[in-house]
Amino acid sequence: MAFLRENQTLLSKIATSQQHGENSPYFDGWKAYDLDPFHLTENPNGVIQMGLAENQLSLDLIEKWIAKNPKSSICTKDGINQFRDIANFQDYHGLCEFRKAIAKFMGKVRGNRVAFDPDRIVMGGGATGTSESLMFCLADPADGFLVATPYYPAFDRDLRWRTGVQLVPIICNSSNDFKITEEALESAYENAIASNIKVKGLIIANPSNPLGTTMDKETLKTLLRFINEKNIHLVCDELYSATIFNTPEFVSISEVLQEMEHDPMNPINRELVHIIYSLSKDMGLPGFRVGILYSYNDHVVSSARKMSSFGLISSQTQHFLASILSDEDFVEGFLSESSKRLAKRHKIFTQGLENEGITCLASNAGLFVWMDLRRLLNKPTFDEEMELWRLIISDVKLNVSPGSSFHCVEPGWFRVCFANMDDQTVEIALKRIHVFIMKGRKNERATKRSKPFQKNLRLSFSSHLYDETTIMSPRIISPHSPFPQSPLVQART
Amino acid sequence: MAFLRENQTLLSKIATSQQHGENSPYFDGWKAYDLDPFHLTENPNGVIQMGLAENQLSLDLIEKWIAKNPKSSICTKDGINQFRDIANFQDYHGLCEFRKAIAKFMGKVRGNRVAFDPDRIVMGGGATGTSESLMFCLADPADGFLVATPYYPAFDRDLRWRTGVQLVPIICNSSNDFKITEEALESAYENAIASNIKVKGLIIANPSNPLGTTMDKETLKTLLRFINEKNIHLVCDELYSATIFNTPEFVSISEVLQEMEHDPMNPINRELVHIIYSLSKDMGLPGFRVGILYSYNDHVVSSARKMSSFGLISSQTQHFLASILSDEDFVEGFLSESSKRLAKRHKIFTQGLENEGITCLASNAGLFVWMDLRRLLNKPTFDEEMELWRLIISDVKLNVSPGSSFHCVEPGWFRVCFANMDDQTVEIALKRIHVFIMKGRKNERATKRSKPFQKNLRLSFSSHLYDETTIMSPRIISPHSPFPQSPLVQART
Repeated sequence: MAFLRENQTLLSKIATSQQHGENSPYFDGWKAYDLDPFHLTENPNGVIQMGLAENQLSLDLIEKWIAKNPKSSICTKDGINQFRDIANFQDYHGLCEFRKAIAKFMGKVRGNRVAFDPDRIVMGGGATGTSESLMFCLADPADGFLVATPYYPAFDRDLRWRTGVQLVPIICNSSNDFKITEEALESAYENAIASNIKVKGLIIANPSNPLGTTMDKETLKTLLRFINEKNIHLVCDELYSATIFNTPEFVSISEVLQEMEHDPMNPINRELVHIIYSLSKDMGLPGFRVGILYSYNDHVVSSARKMSSFGLISSQTQHFLASILSDEDFVEGFLSESSKRLAKRHKIFTQGLENEGITCLASNAGLFVWMDLRRLLNKPTFDEEMELWRLIISDVKLNVSPGSSFHCVEPGWFRVCFANMDDQTVEIALKRIHVFIMKGRKNERATKRSKPFQKNLRLSFSSHLYDETTIMSPRIISPHSPFPQSPLVQART
Repeated sequence: MAFLRENQTLLSKIATSQQHGENSPYFDGWKAYDLDPFHLTENPNGVIQMGLAENQLSLDLIEKWIAKNPKSSICTKDGINQFRDIANFQDYHGLCEFRKAIAKFMGKVRGNRVAFDPDRIVMGGGATGTSESLMFCLADPADGFLVATPYYPAFDRDLRWRTGVQLVPIICNSSNDFKITEEALESAYENAIASNIKVKGLIIANPSNPLGTTMDKETLKTLLRFINEKNIHLVCDELYSATIFNTPEFVSISEVLQEMEHDPMNPINRELVHIIYSLSKDMGLPGFRVGILYSYNDHVVSSARKMSSFGLISSQTQHFLASILSDEDFVEGFLSESSKRLAKRHKIFTQGLENEGITCLASNAGLFVWMDLRRLLNKPTFDEEMELWRLIISDVKLNVSPGSSFHCVEPGWFRVCFANMDDQTVEIALKRIHVFIMKGRKNERATKRSKPFQKNLRLSFSSHLYDETTIMSPRIISPHSPFPQSPLVQART
């Protein structure tokens, strides 16, 4: 305690507070994975990482392109004549060809129905640094931003920690597939006002992380009318815009804004609208730290660009990305193939879950599913959710993320990532789930429901019994599962 | 005004204030260069950029290394088998081999007299982002940090803009070559207290930017005793530690701390000491955005590491740097050769200035000199300094940086960078200075001192008269200048 007091005097409130948001099961699950990471041959009984929204399915396409384009790197014999200029480049506008290529790529991802101006492309250190800078531009400490639940856990760190901005939840639930309603919006706004919070804006993620759903045009119109009426900002996180693998197609806020900004009856003030983008998800390059702010507000562009200096993208990386994104044939092929592969993986994974009686929220985008395990809880409480989550981590050895870490208001939902692994690992994950469900069913029969379902599971399911080799069998992931009547299916009907 | 008011309501105080520090002649000079950049063949009458502390003298050594080491890049056929792992790597600890290589490099730069622990290496988005994060860790808004003048202009942005920290100047002047004295330190501290500012620390740059000098061991000991007694932090910006080109050799705070932390009489609390580092200056790679915090305080390491997420270094870049810095033979050769080349360039440039009667503060480090033009001012005021500076930019077409932008308390000093250009450009810059001085001398004679020296210059010196080709002659940079009796020499005697 003396140490803590000493630190509180010596260090800042930011450093000594726990507002960084990392004391969440979302991050704890990562630590569990880090302690015992699964490897197909070297650690087949380890924890499988299904808590990381990474897109590894199409990196081979990028690798092939690189092999054919040695000039794209300043660290090759073919590209080295540009080393000097690029290694020295530190203008926080970013390389002109990089901004042009990003603007074009953003347009292409949105079906070229809308064009992006390279001069409005502002660089940042990943979506993390970019989102924080945008908050620094828009809000003073203690100002509030409405954010639809469930939302990305690290928003608490990215948007709030150092800026002092408050996040005010908009309550969404499963009754309408977690869609934002006008009532929920107004209610969140009123709650903020009642708590003396000055509301400066609304944040949405479209496609949604963790839901994997996209917003329809009508919802986006409602949001635009809402923020325009209140004269507050709309921040659209469109990080997953190229992960659409099914209908309906993606509608970007930029398209709806284009339609509505000149509406003679109720023109929308475009200066209130800002898009956060990145290549971490759509291209599968999180290590490259590409964050993009696209703002329709000149003053925000100018201020955020000054803030770029705190997290510029390495010029080596800018140069490489400018090269690859400027190859239009490659980009088109990549986007189409990536979408196909995500669709296939999503289908395999969700069908595998369905075979065990587990459903997910219907989705068309993202690198994850929003898995419904509500029926596995004895009571609809977050304590129960955490207990189930610990069981899944420790015994099933899958790092999935509990809904509570996404500020979901309904216990029993879990985000499960499916694109950061190879086919075999998915298969093993599904087999583990199968064994888990079977164990529960068996125990349930044995105890004749004398004890709650998951408590039984927890008592009987030991990692010592867990032997990957004995349960590795391809039949489990077949849609024609030999176990169609899992207890979950029974429980749901 | 209506627009401004509207913005002030809609945007943050940070975005609408002018605290970003970019409304300084330091940055204005860059803009002048950007509008009319010098090029040897394409724009020989353009502005020569001498306001940018870039180290371009040894990049050829890095280029040669790259050509021999194609595996160092994940974007080559030889290195591509690591593409997937590296492109996905986003752990904010940084690649283990990167941290190890950086720690070793920092030790080597300090003559291996002190060792650095890779686990204390914290990454950030350049020195800019790293310094800001450190401020967020150490101080609350309105807290103060003492900083020795003259200091790097962008400290106002990096340390102050978004953190709300106040910078309290420690007044240094030419009477003792701008050394920090105990009296100046105490006086700054007392001034802060009198202004109700809570002092949280002291910031120094060693080697100094803009002075190009290093601090002696006694001064560093004084600083350590001072901060230890006051129980405040010491932040040492050691960005230029490998640019030493002359005696005395560099002494890092880490060495002095090593000596003093176990002093039985007055042990120094190491938890108060933090080093900011980068590869932008020492390796000449500013585009790669490598910022490093080395803190002796565990809590700061932990908090700053969480903040790394706002400005991680691209994993592509981390991987490349880990490879090149792990090649110890290369590093040794590079450091030694880089130092020799800087020494040579410094000598050529300062001798060229001396030939025109212009002296600089004696220096042993850095990529610039601190040029003394006090005698060119009619009065020792900053208005006069600005007038002279505008003349140098517009007519001599050299972008140098006025001392006022470094918060220097004495008018008439200018920082002039000499390592961001090739030999020919240096030669041209010196010739322009020669013509400038000759013009002044001629006008002075013509008007028989009826008008002040620089006003004459300004009236008579027109860029239309400026023809690079006519003044290109190698004799000017010779130490045996045909013009030893320039008006400046006379004025000084």
